[in-house]
Amino acid sequence: MPDLHSAEIIAVGSELLTPHRVDTNSLFLTGRLNELGIVVHAKTVVGDDRADLATAVRGALSRADLVIATGGLGPTDDDLTRDVVAQVLGRTLAEDPQIVEGMVARFARRGVAMPAVNRKQAQVPQGAVVLPNSRGTAPGLLLETDGRFIVLLPGPPREMQPMFDEQVAPRLAAMTAGRQVRRRVIKITGRSESQVEEVAYPIYSRLTSPVGPVQTTILASPGQIELHLSASGSDVVAIDRTLADGVAQLSEALGSIVFSVDGRSLETVVGDLLHARSLHLAVAESCTGGLLLGRLTEVPGSSDWVVGGVVAYSNSVKVQTLGVGHDLLEAHGAVSEPVARAMAEGVRLLGADVGASITGIAGPGGGSPEKPVGTVVVAVAYRETVARTFLFPGDRETVRRHSTSAALDMIRRSLL
Amino acid sequence: MPDLHSAEIIAVGSELLTPHRVDTNSLFLTGRLNELGIVVHAKTVVGDDRADLATAVRGALSRADLVIATGGLGPTDDDLTRDVVAQVLGRTLAEDPQIVEGMVARFARRGVAMPAVNRKQAQVPQGAVVLPNSRGTAPGLLLETDGRFIVLLPGPPREMQPMFDEQVAPRLAAMTAGRQVRRRVIKITGRSESQVEEVAYPIYSRLTSPVGPVQTTILASPGQIELHLSASGSDVVAIDRTLADGVAQLSEALGSIVFSVDGRSLETVVGDLLHARSLHLAVAESCTGGLLLGRLTEVPGSSDWVVGGVVAYSNSVKVQTLGVGHDLLEAHGAVSEPVARAMAEGVRLLGADVGASITGIAGPGGGSPEKPVGTVVVAVAYRETVARTFLFPGDRETVRRHSTSAALDMIRRSLL
Repeated sequence: MPDLHSAEIIAVGSELLTPHRVDTNSLFLTGRLNELGIVVHAKTVVGDDRADLATAVRGALSRADLVIATGGLGPTDDDLTRDVVAQVLGRTLAEDPQIVEGMVARFARRGVAMPAVNRKQAQVPQGAVVLPNSRGTAPGLLLETDGRFIVLLPGPPREMQPMFDEQVAPRLAAMTAGRQVRRRVIKITGRSESQVEEVAYPIYSRLTSPVGPVQTTILASPGQIELHLSASGSDVVAIDRTLADGVAQLSEALGSIVFSVDGRSLETVVGDLLHARSLHLAVAESCTGGLLLGRLTEVPGSSDWVVGGVVAYSNSVKVQTLGVGHDLLEAHGAVSEPVARAMAEGVRLLGADVGASITGIAGPGGGSPEKPVGTVVVAVAYRETVARTFLFPGDRETVRRHSTSAALDMIRRSLL
Repeated sequence: MPDLHSAEIIAVGSELLTPHRVDTNSLFLTGRLNELGIVVHAKTVVGDDRADLATAVRGALSRADLVIATGGLGPTDDDLTRDVVAQVLGRTLAEDPQIVEGMVARFARRGVAMPAVNRKQAQVPQGAVVLPNSRGTAPGLLLETDGRFIVLLPGPPREMQPMFDEQVAPRLAAMTAGRQVRRRVIKITGRSESQVEEVAYPIYSRLTSPVGPVQTTILASPGQIELHLSASGSDVVAIDRTLADGVAQLSEALGSIVFSVDGRSLETVVGDLLHARSLHLAVAESCTGGLLLGRLTEVPGSSDWVVGGVVAYSNSVKVQTLGVGHDLLEAHGAVSEPVARAMAEGVRLLGADVGASITGIAGPGGGSPEKPVGTVVVAVAYRETVARTFLFPGDRETVRRHSTSAALDMIRRSLL
């Protein structure tokens, strides 16, 4: 029985070599392979081209214990993966009558005859294990060659993912001797990547698992920093203990800027806090124009703790719907702490316990020397009303994303 | 002077081999290379590993006229690209005093001494052209070997993109004899991929440019289908004429489901229509919870034509802020055409000329046999009030995305 350690992933499809589409199947596959203790060493994208695909398959098979190729199993002339892999391995193709039967039945259920082109999908290289497709016509294939494995999966994620989980993962698990990669994620908001790294580095540089150093990665996006800790081995209990210890040390050093160590998003953490306290939230947004409400209502079940809100893009909506006084707007301007407070208190009257507001200048226009682009005021009205002025870097989209994260964090802090 | 036709892109960085991050630099580079008439044949991602990186560089150089590698030019031990490429090409490295000087000055401007590790970034392989970095410390490098070229660029997009545009693109343009890839995009909403393909296929299968067939790609995302037409050659005028003719034929066959042939997004098209007519829009959202307002206000300058709106997640907000009658809600339920009409007409009173509303069941919970998950009602109040009931497929996020596109399209149609 071979022991699989290393994998390479090949995504096949000319559309993945345009400026418009990126291969995301490999993210799913990498996560699943890591859980099986298999490390991905390289990913390749090739077009629907016989020579390029053959080169990629030959190269990957020469380096990795396992090669997974996605895409190119369809019925059209462009779909070459089956053919090219058979040729690289020197296998003949033969039609599998069971696959043909399954496809004919599948089309019949939809009341149509199977197009002749689909017959091609029943071609199976000699010695291959057929992986039935519960969501589409193209079956997957698993082949062994010189103690190495190549798995061919369909490109559409809704077909590829269940096929991997139901048919590939159990076969791979039998070949990895119980090895697993375990991972923990610490999520942080309100600090820059370098500020977080300064605190975290001395700690994670000395974390060691039973099988060697803990792998650490820091990922930054506007308004959020993630610290990833991972380690692999077959003593899962010992590894989990090591990672939990690392998470505890880092959480203590980083303090209240850590909002989640269990994978939850910032909006889910806020929702859980509201839900646990039977509180309802309403939101008034100006420059973010609905994005904060959009993030909150992405959480399934959010109707239990969000009543809704107002997007007060124009001053007249601020006055009419939120009851912000004309005098306040004139004295301080729409982007000011007094107006943000009035918006948060005004929107709370929609039947909520907590009101939050965002008003600011997201750009590209609208800035001034006193209030440059990136100036954003957030207010939260709960037991008391607090307001804070930020100056966020970046373009319109980045400023808007920072603003919604800052508001979520202020709501979180006012509930703690 | 070599003529460059084919390129491969290598993204270097172990973080790109985790389940969490995807290489997007290659999308920018592919777009730019296509404009120069250079086709990308393969993309590879490798980690910060000497052997894996050397294999990738060697393989790419054996196949393509041009190899672009991004990442791994930083100052830390993980950053191996410079070293490995020098080794693969058999070049020695020497410190470039001008680079050191530039880095020292850069740090001095921030009031700090240059850390010793950064000196590594001044190592230049023999014969390389140094590409100064206007946004960071790591310079890029361009090397020629046996008539092929390899370009090393920093990983952060804010450093990589201007370096490519300012320093790499002009050098490549001089080597491609004026060849360009030209591209046109037709954007469509309100139909499925297969419905669009059925109409489009007979047309685009007979499109031919002066240098051969026009390349076509169809890209589907929830609520939007894109048809891409591209062709390459040096007679740009003739190619553009061919593509314009293809766009015209396809637009005529597809009719009013085409909303853009000039790259504009659906929200920008709606904004431009409103702006041209000096109209203002207000939006009331239930199940989409602010996402439609979020899409609209993503458009710079949207404050000229969006006044704002209400996220009426709870029925009490529908009654209190939008004036939806209790009787309507009781008789028809919140997800119904009468309620959607009342929401659109109610939100229009916020000082807008056009009111739009979305109410529906995005799931995962909340469905019933009469109104299953995916049931969404959209209404638009302009000259008259129109309402339409949809049943969208997919998960919560997909239903929400479909809903906002359907609403944008109904606004667009009511303005035409």
